[in-house]
Amino acid sequence: MAGIEPLLTLQEKFASLPGIGPKSAMRLAYYVINMPPEEVKEFAQDMYRARLAIRYCAICGNLTDEDTCSVCADETRDHSVVCVVKDPRDVWALEKVQEYRGVYHVLGGAISPLHGVGPEDIRIPELLERVRKGDVKEVILATNPDVEGEATAVYISRQLAEFGVKITRIAHGVPVGSELEYTDSVTLRKALEGRTAF
Amino acid sequence: MAGIEPLLTLQEKFASLPGIGPKSAMRLAYYVINMPPEEVKEFAQDMYRARLAIRYCAICGNLTDEDTCSVCADETRDHSVVCVVKDPRDVWALEKVQEYRGVYHVLGGAISPLHGVGPEDIRIPELLERVRKGDVKEVILATNPDVEGEATAVYISRQLAEFGVKITRIAHGVPVGSELEYTDSVTLRKALEGRTAF
Repeated sequence: MAGIEPLLTLQEKFASLPGIGPKSAMRLAYYVINMPPEEVKEFAQDMYRARLAIRYCAICGNLTDEDTCSVCADETRDHSVVCVVKDPRDVWALEKVQEYRGVYHVLGGAISPLHGVGPEDIRIPELLERVRKGDVKEVILATNPDVEGEATAVYISRQLAEFGVKITRIAHGVPVGSELEYTDSVTLRKALEGRTAF
Repeated sequence: MAGIEPLLTLQEKFASLPGIGPKSAMRLAYYVINMPPEEVKEFAQDMYRARLAIRYCAICGNLTDEDTCSVCADETRDHSVVCVVKDPRDVWALEKVQEYRGVYHVLGGAISPLHGVGPEDIRIPELLERVRKGDVKEVILATNPDVEGEATAVYISRQLAEFGVKITRIAHGVPVGSELEYTDSVTLRKALEGRTAF
């Protein structure tokens, strides 16, 4: 329809975001059109500001608005224990637990030959360099329990073997609060394999 | 987490949009953080521009980036037939059919005592004024076939009675391509009531 091109342009922009179809995009664009102009301005500014402010931590690859992230900058944490994760969002998930006192290494992806992602395409060289240089005593492999995450964990553990550092993998098993009946067989097998004394 | 406040601010903004929960909002904010900065800038600009550019048509209440919308400005259309709808999106839906050659009147809502929306809160006075002044021959009531839409249609038809204008209501019935078996009984009743010679 003529005369609403700016709205259609905004719809297109929303539709380019992940998980937003054309109908949702129109709903969002239409909502924005009906917001107070000053709120839309603020939204637009916050969007661009966030993009400019957020960078990757020079040490671990976590997101930050400083040179190093708040975890790496925290001297009360144990910098000799490095937890390797795929994504900054994994860091946030683990930080929420308020249990872990070591630091992180964010890979920014997982090895996936199918998608053309090799060890050099994610931050594995940086991890090896970090272990080579630093006084890292333990590397916890907390990549996802899927095919790519497992492959990544196996690859890293082999590369780290020569450094004599302790390598651990987070436990796989039945999630707390779930029911055995509805747990898939691979998880159940892992839960049996990983059983501990009671 | 410290150091990612701009990201959390953006997440909040996304979460304030309709149908976007906190998890989707984080997914979107995270996606934006990983977009090229110039694309984010363009998105932000398009958002604010759309908000500033889009206004309501002075005649019918449809959205437009001019004083009057493209339908009202089109002299080849029949301005004596006015189709009354709830929302600009209803105009777009009807325009897609490329069948209707009259003009529109967008109410911007429906009468809903439950939500405190009376006839004066939506563009009913403007409609009455339009019929009073103009050479409107027919008013097609195309409000939604729900309680509020019906109430709005009934109210408008009563108000228009004195003007001696032809008042019609869009047909309700079984949607094309659907199955009788799965059609609700209210719609079936409407379909029977509205049956036509074959």
